Amino acid sequence: MTTAINPTREENYPEWYQAVVKAADLAEVSPVRGCMVIKPWGYALWERIQACLDAMFKATGHVNAYFPLFIPLSYLEKEAEHVEGFAKECAVVTHHRLEMGTDGKLVPAGELEMPLVVRPTSETIIGAMYAKWVQSYRDLPILINQWANIVRWEMRTRLFLRTTEFLWQEGHTAHETRQEAWEETLRMLEVYRTFAEDYLAIPVLTGEKSAGERFPGAVSSFCIEAMMQDRKALQSGTSHFLGQNFAKASEIMFQSREGGQEYAWTTSWGASTRLIGGMVMVHADDNGMVIPPRLAPSHVAVLPIIRSEEDRAGVLAYCEGIVKALRERNYHDKPLEVVLDLREMNAGEKSWDWIKKGIPLTLEIGPRDMANDTVFVGRRDKDRKERAGMGRTEFIAGVQGILDDMQQNLFQRAKAFREENTEAIADWEAFRAFFTPANEERPEIHGGFSLSYWCGDPACEKRVNDELAVTIRCIPLDAREHGTGKCISCGGESKTRVVFAKAY
Amino acid sequence: MTTAINPTREENYPEWYQAVVKAADLAEVSPVRGCMVIKPWGYALWERIQACLDAMFKATGHVNAYFPLFIPLSYLEKEAEHVEGFAKECAVVTHHRLEMGTDGKLVPAGELEMPLVVRPTSETIIGAMYAKWVQSYRDLPILINQWANIVRWEMRTRLFLRTTEFLWQEGHTAHETRQEAWEETLRMLEVYRTFAEDYLAIPVLTGEKSAGERFPGAVSSFCIEAMMQDRKALQSGTSHFLGQNFAKASEIMFQSREGGQEYAWTTSWGASTRLIGGMVMVHADDNGMVIPPRLAPSHVAVLPIIRSEEDRAGVLAYCEGIVKALRERNYHDKPLEVVLDLREMNAGEKSWDWIKKGIPLTLEIGPRDMANDTVFVGRRDKDRKERAGMGRTEFIAGVQGILDDMQQNLFQRAKAFREENTEAIADWEAFRAFFTPANEERPEIHGGFSLSYWCGDPACEKRVNDELAVTIRCIPLDAREHGTGKCISCGGESKTRVVFAKAY
Repeated sequence: MTTAINPTREENYPEWYQAVVKAADLAEVSPVRGCMVIKPWGYALWERIQACLDAMFKATGHVNAYFPLFIPLSYLEKEAEHVEGFAKECAVVTHHRLEMGTDGKLVPAGELEMPLVVRPTSETIIGAMYAKWVQSYRDLPILINQWANIVRWEMRTRLFLRTTEFLWQEGHTAHETRQEAWEETLRMLEVYRTFAEDYLAIPVLTGEKSAGERFPGAVSSFCIEAMMQDRKALQSGTSHFLGQNFAKASEIMFQSREGGQEYAWTTSWGASTRLIGGMVMVHADDNGMVIPPRLAPSHVAVLPIIRSEEDRAGVLAYCEGIVKALRERNYHDKPLEVVLDLREMNAGEKSWDWIKKGIPLTLEIGPRDMANDTVFVGRRDKDRKERAGMGRTEFIAGVQGILDDMQQNLFQRAKAFREENTEAIADWEAFRAFFTPANEERPEIHGGFSLSYWCGDPACEKRVNDELAVTIRCIPLDAREHGTGKCISCGGESKTRVVFAKAY
Repeated sequence: MTTAINPTREENYPEWYQAVVKAADLAEVSPVRGCMVIKPWGYALWERIQACLDAMFKATGHVNAYFPLFIPLSYLEKEAEHVEGFAKECAVVTHHRLEMGTDGKLVPAGELEMPLVVRPTSETIIGAMYAKWVQSYRDLPILINQWANIVRWEMRTRLFLRTTEFLWQEGHTAHETRQEAWEETLRMLEVYRTFAEDYLAIPVLTGEKSAGERFPGAVSSFCIEAMMQDRKALQSGTSHFLGQNFAKASEIMFQSREGGQEYAWTTSWGASTRLIGGMVMVHADDNGMVIPPRLAPSHVAVLPIIRSEEDRAGVLAYCEGIVKALRERNYHDKPLEVVLDLREMNAGEKSWDWIKKGIPLTLEIGPRDMANDTVFVGRRDKDRKERAGMGRTEFIAGVQGILDDMQQNLFQRAKAFREENTEAIADWEAFRAFFTPANEERPEIHGGFSLSYWCGDPACEKRVNDELAVTIRCIPLDAREHGTGKCISCGGESKTRVVFAKAY
């Protein structure tokens, strides 16, 4: 069987991923080391992610603001673990102009007294502002989100998954009490879970990170973790309880209800363009991208098939009528988005173009469909051979139901895949075998997620990582409900069952 | 008369501006030199600008994408005038990590072989991508916009008007023919004019820049120019016809219909957070910000006035009913946005807080209003003394009309102000007097816009600038329709009447 994407997932998963991103025209490598260009179809996915998440943030009481791109070195130094975590990957601005050198080439000039870092995350600069804004408990909580670009100097990059510059949102909140900040941390984790499952159709596990995987400077980090089709994990959103660490570093103090001076309790939480990579790796197939309907920038591509000039006017008028009727319908409180593709190109190529782009539905419409008052419907989550004719009015009346069915199908399929590839493993040898690729040339083929006990010792966590390149993805929120067992590494008594996996 | 803003516009215009921005809580200076923090209410204005402009860009066939923050030095060098124009204000990244120095302070490490510039504008990096994307005339036009942050190292900064980092959009298009690119340039100028006048309620002049004021590397630059309340001009959006200059620099070549190789014709156009500063300087008054209704993040603030506990439940229920009824109404195809302000604070202070923030309408509602089934309406474009009672149902039914009337009133008021302060001046002495402040301590008090002839000689333009700090703001699109006259500077024959003004 020929497929639109070469190689296929089975043949070479990493190359398949790059090929899907290219064939769907989502993004490409730029001439700037490690930075990507997000192309219009990829950026349209990001606009949908922004719109949906932004509405969820606002519904939970947050507002947007914007803080500087640059962070003075002295700010970064304020929180010891934080600077330790980010120092190795900071782009540093040292000059503020260019001069023509003697060789006719530009050279940096105007050296700064204090170098500036391009933000790798904004806790320190935002903390400095909150310290000014917060005087009294009446000024709390502060519930602010920022949509921004971020730079973390990466040595090995991959489109969407790991790039030097990426787009994200970062929420930063400050609270009067530990309890409030803790609740906020878990509330935003739940927002991410809901968004991933209901919009991206990606089932996720929610849990806490081990100390070794924690955000630098956080007291507790929580995450959503998803399984990709190569059975590796992708961390897809994080929510951090920062305790009073950053409040102390930035001196966010307030007069309490009792009249004393106290440090605020803060949180931060973020999700990024990485989510687009996650959608590709969870839903795409050997014919290209598959976009869940609720995230789709366009839901339906109408493709007129004109084989002779005498058919043209009739087919176009029939198609335009269908487009108009569809655009009058809503899909989840927004108008249904329909593309009428009038490009002059081979009908098969045009249809494949939309398949590779992952649009949920294609309607191929020729003279025979017009004569029968039908449409020929392709549904992106089904095999291309299952395309079928359908009455025009029936399709128009039922389009939302078809899209919802596709949304559910994608979610259930991904969930079933994760469940098939998740095992509760208690024994080190079985664990080792589960994570050891049978074929050395195909390192990506291994078991998946293992639910195993861990005693809590970082040495045990490190051994698993060193020997198998496997990490603790999260300690599920219900980790204590599974009784006790033996640590997968040392065999010691353990009260906590965690998720082990290879990860991006 | 006491005013909420001190000093007043009359007393000290520049300080009044800073005081309005502060009192409305729009933005503040950050600890990072020249960079501002855009606070939630200011950022909400930017979100409205984004939403409205973005819809207009999409309606004219454009799509969004995202290009890298960093530009390699070698790219910037490609267009000679361009690099000349921006070299003096570029932030330069020279290192990609930090190390702990011997004194316990962080120092830059990992020097880059080729320094990177933080984008001051993106023609060169986007041009490099278009060169890859364009092979044939079939690949044209490319109609892309980007929402992004930009860095231009400024020595003297002012919130919104001139900051080292700012937010903007930059459109970059590539076309098959000169004519198409020219039409695109003027189409986007018209989009900016429509947006400024219909949404921001700011009347603008449209025209071409003189060579001296042109975008570095452009063939022709067009702009919208507005008059502030100190009679100075603010350039509020620009649209550049780049000819084939950047296509040649970036090698954007295509196979033409005739089979030859040709360079593409390109345009670029942008508007920024500066528009928020423009809104302040055109509409705000001595009591603070005034937001035109079509740009307002919230249209109505409902302020319950509770003087005794026994009134509380009744007044709140009455207010909630009004809020609910208002939220069911639309304003220009979007739900009307209503704030119910339940903060525990003095009623007068609360009302002033919303006046300073510039919300279009306030409803102060106490037990007497409830008894009379009325609301007490304050309209931000009128004097506070004109607040008046109005029947509840009458207000709810008429709210859109009131908002539209306010929108029109703001526009007409600004237009009348500009007309009052615009003169057709033919004589150098009169011109000099027009632009010379009567009081040396109040340099901002001068005539306004002068419509005067100019022979086209850059030396004449320079003299006016050197002697009076006055520049040619634009050559209006209808400049040739005013016959001929004598150049204001040299007295020579001139066919073009231009707009002279002091400017931000």
